[in-house]
Amino acid sequence: MSKLRVAVVGAGGYVGSEICRLLLGHPLAELTYLADVDALVGRRFDALYSSFRGRLDLAIQAFDVAAIAAAADVAFLALPHGKGMDMAPALLERGTKVVDIGADYRLKDVACFERWYDVKHTSPELLAEAPYAIPELFREQIRGARLVSNPGCYPTSAIVPLYPLLEAKLLDLNTIVVNSASGVSGAGRMPPAEFFSYAYLNEDYKAYGVAAHRHLPEIEQGLSWAAGEPVRISFTPHLLPVTRGILTTSYANLTRKVTTEDLLALLNQRYADEYFVRVLPKGQFPNLKSVVGSNFLDLGACVDEHVNRAIVISAEDNLIKGAAGQAVQNMNIIFDLDERSGLEALPVFP
Amino acid sequence: MSKLRVAVVGAGGYVGSEICRLLLGHPLAELTYLADVDALVGRRFDALYSSFRGRLDLAIQAFDVAAIAAAADVAFLALPHGKGMDMAPALLERGTKVVDIGADYRLKDVACFERWYDVKHTSPELLAEAPYAIPELFREQIRGARLVSNPGCYPTSAIVPLYPLLEAKLLDLNTIVVNSASGVSGAGRMPPAEFFSYAYLNEDYKAYGVAAHRHLPEIEQGLSWAAGEPVRISFTPHLLPVTRGILTTSYANLTRKVTTEDLLALLNQRYADEYFVRVLPKGQFPNLKSVVGSNFLDLGACVDEHVNRAIVISAEDNLIKGAAGQAVQNMNIIFDLDERSGLEALPVFP
Amino acid sequence: MSKLRVAVVGAGGYVGSEICRLLLGHPLAELTYLADVDALVGRRFDALYSSFRGRLDLAIQAFDVAAIAAAADVAFLALPHGKGMDMAPALLERGTKVVDIGADYRLKDVACFERWYDVKHTSPELLAEAPYAIPELFREQIRGARLVSNPGCYPTSAIVPLYPLLEAKLLDLNTIVVNSASGVSGAGRMPPAEFFSYAYLNEDYKAYGVAAHRHLPEIEQGLSWAAGEPVRISFTPHLLPVTRGILTTSYANLTRKVTTEDLLALLNQRYADEYFVRVLPKGQFPNLKSVVGSNFLDLGACVDEHVNRAIVISAEDNLIKGAAGQAVQNMNIIFDLDERSGLEALPVFP
Amino acid sequence: MSKLRVAVVGAGGYVGSEICRLLLGHPLAELTYLADVDALVGRRFDALYSSFRGRLDLAIQAFDVAAIAAAADVAFLALPHGKGMDMAPALLERGTKVVDIGADYRLKDVACFERWYDVKHTSPELLAEAPYAIPELFREQIRGARLVSNPGCYPTSAIVPLYPLLEAKLLDLNTIVVNSASGVSGAGRMPPAEFFSYAYLNEDYKAYGVAAHRHLPEIEQGLSWAAGEPVRISFTPHLLPVTRGILTTSYANLTRKVTTEDLLALLNQRYADEYFVRVLPKGQFPNLKSVVGSNFLDLGACVDEHVNRAIVISAEDNLIKGAAGQAVQNMNIIFDLDERSGLEALPVFP
Repeated sequence: MSKLRVAVVGAGGYVGSEICRLLLGHPLAELTYLADVDALVGRRFDALYSSFRGRLDLAIQAFDVAAIAAAADVAFLALPHGKGMDMAPALLERGTKVVDIGADYRLKDVACFERWYDVKHTSPELLAEAPYAIPELFREQIRGARLVSNPGCYPTSAIVPLYPLLEAKLLDLNTIVVNSASGVSGAGRMPPAEFFSYAYLNEDYKAYGVAAHRHLPEIEQGLSWAAGEPVRISFTPHLLPVTRGILTTSYANLTRKVTTEDLLALLNQRYADEYFVRVLPKGQFPNLKSVVGSNFLDLGACVDEHVNRAIVISAEDNLIKGAAGQAVQNMNIIFDLDERSGLEALPVFP
Repeated sequence: MSKLRVAVVGAGGYVGSEICRLLLGHPLAELTYLADVDALVGRRFDALYSSFRGRLDLAIQAFDVAAIAAAADVAFLALPHGKGMDMAPALLERGTKVVDIGADYRLKDVACFERWYDVKHTSPELLAEAPYAIPELFREQIRGARLVSNPGCYPTSAIVPLYPLLEAKLLDLNTIVVNSASGVSGAGRMPPAEFFSYAYLNEDYKAYGVAAHRHLPEIEQGLSWAAGEPVRISFTPHLLPVTRGILTTSYANLTRKVTTEDLLALLNQRYADEYFVRVLPKGQFPNLKSVVGSNFLDLGACVDEHVNRAIVISAEDNLIKGAAGQAVQNMNIIFDLDERSGLEALPVFP
Repeated sequence: MSKLRVAVVGAGGYVGSEICRLLLGHPLAELTYLADVDALVGRRFDALYSSFRGRLDLAIQAFDVAAIAAAADVAFLALPHGKGMDMAPALLERGTKVVDIGADYRLKDVACFERWYDVKHTSPELLAEAPYAIPELFREQIRGARLVSNPGCYPTSAIVPLYPLLEAKLLDLNTIVVNSASGVSGAGRMPPAEFFSYAYLNEDYKAYGVAAHRHLPEIEQGLSWAAGEPVRISFTPHLLPVTRGILTTSYANLTRKVTTEDLLALLNQRYADEYFVRVLPKGQFPNLKSVVGSNFLDLGACVDEHVNRAIVISAEDNLIKGAAGQAVQNMNIIFDLDERSGLEALPVFP
Repeated sequence: MSKLRVAVVGAGGYVGSEICRLLLGHPLAELTYLADVDALVGRRFDALYSSFRGRLDLAIQAFDVAAIAAAADVAFLALPHGKGMDMAPALLERGTKVVDIGADYRLKDVACFERWYDVKHTSPELLAEAPYAIPELFREQIRGARLVSNPGCYPTSAIVPLYPLLEAKLLDLNTIVVNSASGVSGAGRMPPAEFFSYAYLNEDYKAYGVAAHRHLPEIEQGLSWAAGEPVRISFTPHLLPVTRGILTTSYANLTRKVTTEDLLALLNQRYADEYFVRVLPKGQFPNLKSVVGSNFLDLGACVDEHVNRAIVISAEDNLIKGAAGQAVQNMNIIFDLDERSGLEALPVFP
């Protein structure tokens, strides 16, 4: 069988390079086109990322839709918001499937998207056909899609653990708090010099985007689908002095008396057959280093009995399950490949 | 004026050594007795901590109450729980004042103490006279006390920001969530080898003691005093890959409609004259590196308007404002010295 | 073809667990026996290392030579020095091949071994048949061996870059300085609590074992083979606040006038066909993050012309090319498999 | 006595802010003028560095020589090379003394300066009168000077340990290797975004400026003074994943047989009365965390007997003893204040 031909658009960023890394280990796919901004065009990929030295000598090429479509069966768009919708329609028209990793097709309410991202949506007609692609929740919609919208890193970490609890009507919707902490790589390869310098961030920790982060409406959209009614939450991201990983600690008052065992049973029931979601036994909670470098998302939960509140904690690698890994997982589903292909690496520990 | 003679009992631990460091810069106090366990007796302090090389050559001595009382006007007890109450009564009897940094006199409900710490209290008669010594809230009780109970690191970080809001009856008591993250030094100088080794903790992050940490009843006690009625919360500590610092992000639904400005006005009103508590302007939130190395506790707050919930964030150095610094501040108050003596160092940034 | 059956003896340590991780991705090998000390016997491997959760459920078994030999075609011995030579002869006798990762068969001079390791060698008769197994230098001896001695992490990082220069008689033997820096994982899973705690090591850096490290005679042995005469060097290891990686900066006066281009040509000539050794172009030098997580060893070199001295720098992952990865590479060679099997993962960057 | 009025020119950088921090704790000096580039003019200092919040509310002002001279008895110039010599002559003319922290007056050979820094020297007539201000070596020249040239961070760390050994003619001048490792703060507050971002540097380590760093001629100048003849060395700086600190490991063949005790005696003899230089006992070597946050420079040494080579190791805080602290120490000497004023803080450990 001939290999799937893959384009990575935005290959020079952290998510783009991570897709390249994963696909180099994928038995059924091959990189055929790496695109990025003019400043990078012509540079060999392994000159940009010396970890790839000698293993990926393709040169970066321009954002040329016709060339990409000619070269690739599927294109990953790892672009800033507003840029994915510039390219997706033309690629689809030419028959190239698209996994959009940016935000453009995530929020199904156009007005909400335009308010939070401050840009006009130019292809709202595609929103309905682009599944919000968390495979463990929406696999059937992904299978066979020509365009999927890959979820944000924080939303993946919040929606996966809370979804089954909301479906079961267990959570008091007026009390949901999502407290997250992310590694620095979430800010991308070229963050503002001053505030992302090593000297600023090392040995530091702080909240940012308090009650104002763009992933808030995306989380609320996912949780609302689960609850079957509008859900409003508080979401506070924090910046960790680690390179990779998101740990999300969520809280909600319970609508009825349940035990920790009940919570875990619900999660296990939902995710028992999911290779990439690992539900931990009672008394154990996830940590970053047990998932970083892999596509796993680990879950732990308990009932804080003295206040009858659920506490659910998830851990993922923000660049893998939170971005590039989930994107490859979606590609595998779209093309009916083994869902684990290219994604079997275990975390590198310690 | 002759200098205050000071004993540090438990000098070999991180909090003990931090008291030594602060007092070496205190113009009105001098270290006269350093006590620790037999294994350390006889060792020069600067052989134990090479950062003190040549600057503190006192030898560690035994836990000898009579000798301590003879040598010191005041003793800091930086000991594991259960050990402070073994020494405090005898020191007080001999006229030496005591700042107990352990947990023994913090919980005023003896049964609660015995349940959480699994040890019988041997001097419950002292609980009433020992103020819970957060100076910014209970200064008048500290002034002139012969025994004070220095608060825990997490409780300081949670009680200071929430106290004024609870006094003002602003918070729905069924919805309070305290989500904290602490540096590793909180575990002390000799934590379990495997789990506190650098290789395990670096690049990691996780929750621990979920809904079961011993600081929970202490936080609830402080918040209940503020509310004038029993308060029950969820408290989740997390372990950060940093050496020092605690950042606490607290959430609670509001009982009435207020603005961010209202919240900040309340905090400013309470703490305007407090040198060590800094309330940040609207839109700013604290970070660890702006307080670590100092006795400052920084506060930021906002109303998450779309859910009418307060979010309050505090940052402190767990070993200073959360332990040794607050203890020195209490000593200064007890002996009517300038409260800032020995505590004026700014954070070392970057 | 049936898979190679593999035992990992000392599976609970960092090197042992790394072998397990690599072999789970090896298409032609399967783990059949994991052995470790009594305290760990019976524990599921993935309970010991939660990164393996659900992916390796073998239980740890005892050090039982007969059982190991029955279960495995090859055994990796990842044991403290003195323990490998207790097991290797009996395994060989039963027909199981051995990759010894400890120090027991590295030093070919028995007296030297006994002096540096302070233990009597119990199977000196095996020393001659056990190649010092750096594949890039001694592949022919490894092919077909039944026992190989896997080199130390520092020695690999020093011998690979200096070997070709010594063969070419380029270096003044009285001036060789090997200055290394290693991540903390080199100290193993259970280092002394106090000195390897996160709070001690983070933000720190220091030399240790100055002029007295056990890898000194091993480096000198390798360099002497290259030079064809005894070589004595200075070797100073330093402890880096990183989990993985060794960077070795070596210096030696040149015996004749050569250029940077000459040095690089020599290295390229030696290693041009080696997949795992990457020689960088002029003006570039290796860094840890471009090799960590992989079996690569990167090399850079230049002539410091104003003093006519060679500076050669290498980087490797101490647990992979410096231990487990090289061991798997050796297994592949012994059994005539593709040398890259199980070792193709690129570094995880950033 | 009225306080010394101090200007900090380049206050917005890390060294400038560190001078501010130290002087806020100085009993005999007060900050009167903070100058920096136009982009920062008008900003309150504590808005720039939130660690100073509420403790330093001076606004940044322009580079106005007349205003600075009117406001200050002494000016610290913490500027990029080429900028100090633009301001120093005019300040001196107006009677304001100058501690230049940049490179402009360090190299006494104008041609050498112009070659390494690629800029024409505009006040070479001042070079002779500006002592190279390492107080422990050149205190008498500093006392009473109106302009001093504060040494570079690496040169301080290399010259202090090697000076006494070179004076004693102990070192073979053809074999000196200086291998240094520095924390990231050495690159300043605004390093290139990509390469100094947290994600790049954390868990990494590498050499840079190999055989080409601008501190090389400065080190050679200092060592040549000590030797009484030209000294040429190899100098390799490395970039550590820590915020502060330089550890320098130097090697040189010995010209005659000496012992470790002899080396230490030489160092002790030179530095016995120096408060800020601490020579460690035999068998001990310095580490970063025992000096970071302080003005101490710690020294350890040994003879590697099997090759008759000296190994000398130093540790300092690059921003304090390597820059701002040494500058304040020089100010104290110039104005005949207690040399320790403002510099007595111990390292913050852990």
